This record gives sequence, C-alpha cells and structure tokens, in this order.
Amino acid sequence: MRVFIVHAHPEPKSFNGAMTRAAREALTAAGHEVVVSDLYAMGFNPVSDRRNFTTVADPDTYRQQNEEAYAVAHDGLAADITAELAKLDWCDTLILQFPLWWFGLPAILKGWIDRVFVSGGRVYGGGRWYDNGVFAGKRAMCALTIGGAASMYSEHGLSGPIGSILYPVNHGMLYFTGFTVVEPFLVHAPVRISAEDRAAHLARYRARVLDLPAAPVISYPKLADYDERMVLKAPPG
Amino acid sequence: MRVFIVHAHPEPKSFNGAMTRAAREALTAAGHEVVVSDLYAMGFNPVSDRRNFTTVADPDTYRQQNEEAYAVAHDGLAADITAELAKLDWCDTLILQFPLWWFGLPAILKGWIDRVFVSGGRVYGGGRWYDNGVFAGKRAMCALTIGGAASMYSEHGLSGPIGSILYPVNHGMLYFTGFTVVEPFLVHAPVRISAEDRAAHLARYRARVLDLPAAPVISYPKLADYDERMVLKAPPG
Repeated sequence: MRVFIVHAHPEPKSFNGAMTRAAREALTAAGHEVVVSDLYAMGFNPVSDRRNFTTVADPDTYRQQNEEAYAVAHDGLAADITAELAKLDWCDTLILQFPLWWFGLPAILKGWIDRVFVSGGRVYGGGRWYDNGVFAGKRAMCALTIGGAASMYSEHGLSGPIGSILYPVNHGMLYFTGFTVVEPFLVHAPVRISAEDRAAHLARYRARVLDLPAAPVISYPKLADYDERMVLKAPPG
Repeated sequence: MRVFIVHAHPEPKSFNGAMTRAAREALTAAGHEVVVSDLYAMGFNPVSDRRNFTTVADPDTYRQQNEEAYAVAHDGLAADITAELAKLDWCDTLILQFPLWWFGLPAILKGWIDRVFVSGGRVYGGGRWYDNGVFAGKRAMCALTIGGAASMYSEHGLSGPIGSILYPVNHGMLYFTGFTVVEPFLVHAPVRISAEDRAAHLARYRARVLDLPAAPVISYPKLADYDERMVLKAPPG
C-alpha cells in the first residue's frame, strides 16, 4: 500500500499522535509506504481565498470555483495545495486522523479539504464525482477520537448516531471525490481509560491499517441509481 | 432583537454578502440592533491551539479542554475569543451566514466554533448543555447558499437531505450550547438564477430575519428524555 495520513492534532503526545505513529510503524514494518501531512506541524493555512492561487481569473469578484478551474487550467494552484494534491495522486489509501471537535473535523482539517479538493476536473468537476470520481479505486478512512461515551453516539444517543455525524465527511468529502469509504475507526474518551485499554486500542488500530484493503466499507448508491434530478430512482422502503 | 451575525465569505460582492447587508438593513430599519463579525474581513484565525490562551495550565502537554477550563477560571482567554464571547452574551439571536462548502461550514467558521465555544462552564461544561445550555433562551439560525439544486438535497437526493447535512451544526453546535434552533434559510445556486429571483430571495430573507422570534424551529428531545447512559428512554417508532 501507499498510505497518505492527514493528521490534525495540535499535541504530538495526544492519543491521535500515538495512533499516527502506530500506523506508520506497523505499515512501514510490513513493507508499505507512508506519507504523513501533520497539519499543525506544517502550519497549514486552512483559510480558502485568493492565496489558493498564483493566477487571477477575475480581479474584480472572487468566485472560488471559477478561480479553481482557471488555476487548474493555467498551472496556478498555490504550492501548498499542489504538494497535497501530489500526495493524493500518489497514495492508494487515505487516512484522515483527527479528534472529533464539535461533531466534525477540526478547522485545520476542514480547511485542508476546502483548499485542496479543487474543482475544474482536478479533484472534481466535469462529471467527475462519486463512483466516477477522480479518486475512484482508492480507499479512505476516518480514524478519530471522540470525547464522549459510545452510548451517546448510538442510534438514540444524545449526540446522535456516529454514522449520521460523519455522513458529511464520509459521503460528502470522501465518496464525493471517488474514494471507497472504509468504516471509521473510533476510540472513545482515550484520556479517561486505562493505559492497558489505550494499548489495546493501538493494537487494534495497527491491525486495522494493515487490513485496509479488506476492511469493511460503507455501501452507497451509484450515480446510475439516480434520475436526471439526482434523486434515487428506487428509494429503499 | 439584538442580532449577532457571524459572516463567513471571502467576497463582499457574493450573494452571502448581499444577504448579510439585507439582514442588517431590514433589522436596523425596524429598530433592532445588529452586530456582524465578518470573519474574512477580520482575518479571524480559525486554528485552535495554545494561542487561544494567555494562560498555561500544563506547559508539557496541550490538552485543549483542560486549558480552556483553566483559562476561563484565570481570565486567560485570548482577546479575539473574549470579544466574540461578549457578542454571544449580548445577542438574543445568532445567525451563521455561510456558503455550504463540502457539506459543512467553511473552515474559518468551523474554527470560530472550535475556538470561541470554550468549556469550563463558559459556553459548555459542568452540566451546561442542550436545554440546560449557557445560551438557553436565545435563538440561532443558519443562513446559507448551496451550489446544487434543491432536489439533490431532498430525502433521496444524491447529496443527502439538507437536514442530515446540517445536523452536526444545528444539533451539535447550536442546540448543544442551548440555542433554540430556527429552521435554516437556504438559497440554492444563487449564481445560476436570474436577478429577479435573487431579489425575491433577498426579500424573503428580510422577512425571515424580521420574523425570527416567531419563525419555525427544529424540535429536539430534552435532556430529561435521556437515561443515565444518555440514550433516549422512549425512542420513536
């Protein structure tokens, strides 16, 4: 495998840090290649604006998708975006490693998506999305820590089901761009469990990353299942 | 009303910009007070880390919630966070104005939540959440533009239902902190509709903001509806 880990935690000594180190060690020891973008260590800028580009399509009004398409056509993406795109092209497996903050991605990781997933056919656009997406054939997985107990994230839990909370990420970011989406790897409340339990989670995580090509995936409809209004032709139930 | 609009778009000439100007004008003309945090214009930093604080609880390991609680107890929140908290305390109505990017908040707005919604009992913590939340009694609403057609965001649309996509924001950020959550105000594909249709949307938006105290709200269960594991005692169906 060629695994690209996008890591979003401000503290290297965190459990997220331990998970990324465990993944890198296990994969490397098994002969796989690993590249990590440690967004905090890189000082990655998550704010999407004209600094995304070295080109200017319209100096008067900033329309982000238009500027993206123009930049893709004129070699005008900023260097930090180009570098991340090269890692996405290189990998066959993407891992987003993050703590669940406010039921979503930390802003530094959301902004990595906002800035790097450019239109103009580079990451999407021109009919390239979902099962016809640019990254079709690659796998992706969220690996995350969650502050609250698992029961709170169950079907009728106070937080709502974790599958619903992660839907915008798994369906809207990963499947949208063509990835086959592996079931997320969750660790609840790592600061409130024993050292033995933390070690067990890391062992389970090493096994999961080595098994990524065979790990269970989330099943979504295909583009062919939708009509011209982009509504399911045969909804379930 | 005292209305606080948190505005997250890089282009003042955008439809999001027009919406915030329309809201401000309509509300002010009717005698209400309006404060706007224009995050791009402010150069708001969305990256949560030690710069959130002037105090240090633990110089060795950064644990964000611990640092938040320590800073709340020791007057150690950074000036930009303190300023936003004062606006939240002042308002009775909060509007999040944004374009839907990757099925969620633009990173600059997600990071506003990450950094400003501090624990330690200031915005949450110590049993202050949901209907017992710090902002109970205030109303909040998402006002957003969406690139795709409404059918794509219907119950069986390709993108998934807009209610599911916004669940982490409406339930996980707004209701979590105590707000009564008004149904979101949506404008689909404002760049692909006529000037007349855009004007009609702005007129509809002016009416909505003036009607915020009576506008329809999203109904969520109360804390008393959950058992000690934070699972609904009487799930529907």
